[in-house]
Amino acid sequence: MNHTLHDKIQHAIDFKTKPLGALGRLEEIALQIALIQQSETPQLINPHILVFAADHGIANSGVSAYPQEVTWQMVLNFLQGGAAINVFAKQNNLEVKVIDAGVNKDFEKQEKLIDGKIDFGTKNFLTQPAMSLLQLQQCKKKAIEIVTELIQNTKCNCIGFGEMGIGNTSSASLMMHCLSLINLEDCIGKGTGLNEEQLENKKTILSKALSNHNIDYKNTDEVLQTFGGFEIAMMSQAMQHAARSNCIVLVDGFIATVAYLAAFKTDPKIATSAIFCHQSEEKGHKLLLEYLQVKPLLNLGMRLGEGTGCAVAFPIVQAAVNFLTKMASFESAKVTNKAE
Amino acid sequence: MNHTLHDKIQHAIDFKTKPLGALGRLEEIALQIALIQQSETPQLINPHILVFAADHGIANSGVSAYPQEVTWQMVLNFLQGGAAINVFAKQNNLEVKVIDAGVNKDFEKQEKLIDGKIDFGTKNFLTQPAMSLLQLQQCKKKAIEIVTELIQNTKCNCIGFGEMGIGNTSSASLMMHCLSLINLEDCIGKGTGLNEEQLENKKTILSKALSNHNIDYKNTDEVLQTFGGFEIAMMSQAMQHAARSNCIVLVDGFIATVAYLAAFKTDPKIATSAIFCHQSEEKGHKLLLEYLQVKPLLNLGMRLGEGTGCAVAFPIVQAAVNFLTKMASFESAKVTNKAE
Repeated sequence: MNHTLHDKIQHAIDFKTKPLGALGRLEEIALQIALIQQSETPQLINPHILVFAADHGIANSGVSAYPQEVTWQMVLNFLQGGAAINVFAKQNNLEVKVIDAGVNKDFEKQEKLIDGKIDFGTKNFLTQPAMSLLQLQQCKKKAIEIVTELIQNTKCNCIGFGEMGIGNTSSASLMMHCLSLINLEDCIGKGTGLNEEQLENKKTILSKALSNHNIDYKNTDEVLQTFGGFEIAMMSQAMQHAARSNCIVLVDGFIATVAYLAAFKTDPKIATSAIFCHQSEEKGHKLLLEYLQVKPLLNLGMRLGEGTGCAVAFPIVQAAVNFLTKMASFESAKVTNKAE
Repeated sequence: MNHTLHDKIQHAIDFKTKPLGALGRLEEIALQIALIQQSETPQLINPHILVFAADHGIANSGVSAYPQEVTWQMVLNFLQGGAAINVFAKQNNLEVKVIDAGVNKDFEKQEKLIDGKIDFGTKNFLTQPAMSLLQLQQCKKKAIEIVTELIQNTKCNCIGFGEMGIGNTSSASLMMHCLSLINLEDCIGKGTGLNEEQLENKKTILSKALSNHNIDYKNTDEVLQTFGGFEIAMMSQAMQHAARSNCIVLVDGFIATVAYLAAFKTDPKIATSAIFCHQSEEKGHKLLLEYLQVKPLLNLGMRLGEGTGCAVAFPIVQAAVNFLTKMASFESAKVTNKAE
């Protein structure tokens, strides 16, 4: 770490016209971003939300409140600009791109849709691994391509990661259990809105799925291949590549955080680049955030995914950058400092 | 209450393309604002931040980490656009007006400064009431004038209330104690940054101040007159008048919430118009929010006042209005709903 730069940034933060530390988390975020960018005057350039969408074989086993077709219907909704993520992204000047990582539907080409289709959904992990090793490798390759192109074409230095995929809380719960060793039951929640009976059924199904596979929990790739989704695998690698490219990684809710967990297990350095945006109401998320020892910016009781947590939290990230680069210092404003 | 309108708005919220309730607090805020405006298509018009500034006689008794002159110096900083509130307000398209409610300094006339000066600071409540009854009445009259003019001139329907005044956490702590009956000690915090020893000293001074007055805690005006500040009294009345004028009342941190408390004790109906923006690190604030049974939108460890909590939270309020008015419904987007 460059101590001189760190000290310079901390000094700039401390001598803004406010009591020491009075901007709380904003000060932490400002320092983090300045260090990611290795700059005393960081800026957010062309921030994007990438929404990774895919279908899941497990969706047909009664784990979700919505039918699988909702995945492609929502992809069209994203492309038409009618979904929550579109509204929040537009409000905060964020560009949305949707990645078809493996939706069970053919889409026509269009500007905001990135074709990353691996297959028409994963296999049902109740009886077989969700994807082949080759498919996992394809996910990773595609993820690197997408992030590389985005950065090259737009100079984007801040990416919010969101997802859509009916059944993907099931996938995420199993992955969370394997990678964190937290009790499976504590990793399972109501997703898009199961009732208590349906939740019990989901728990039974996921326990069965777990017992049907004999995998090495320390092998992140094996966990991803067995229980993952194409959108989760792709997102996980995309986060890693964004971090390596000095992008800010904005992490959305439960599923995005599980993708982050897989990335973190592979390379813990990603932590310096990540900002956790929102604590989801989905049961496992709070425990997972605690496990990762991170504190999200928001806790608004949302549980929607799509990157909505990132989009709603984005102005807070911007506020952190802005106070560092635009506020007066005690000296410049001729305000008496406590220290004098 | 208009049940038909309430039901219509709730129906519109429920049939947006998202699981039922999946936008959490945003859904509550959307409903609240639609009801304030009595409209299924609410909008935020010319939102303002009003920063009420004044000096306090108690500031000279060693209760603050900063000298009294910082109040007027910060007022100039607000007017020059260099303070945190300026940066955050500009980012989120909020207009800032500063009210000189009683700063110990003469200011030149300028566009963003509203002259509401009652006196050059309050008296020191250690030995006498902070203000006279006449001064309290002047505060109230001026507050109504300010809000009335603002609404008439700009059609503003959303006001964030912030403050500046060296010593005003002392004033707020005593008022909080009298109006909530929470132990005085639990109402007292470190303000702009006292150390432990200075905090103990502050507690001793405020206990002494309390014992030097024999007032009726049920009489909000008497509490305001004895321990209040001009900015707190004016803000309290301005909040009431904004609420009566169907404005959204955005409440900032500890001191603004104490002003709200005085307003609430006078007329509890204000609760339907108020949105609590940020839980301050200042000790008493958490207890006060619990006492009021309200939950702020943000908890970012800030403790700066100036309306910064309102300005940083504003995009969340906007997001609530936007999803209600701009998101597609299941029907319009042709997405299969769970209910079908």
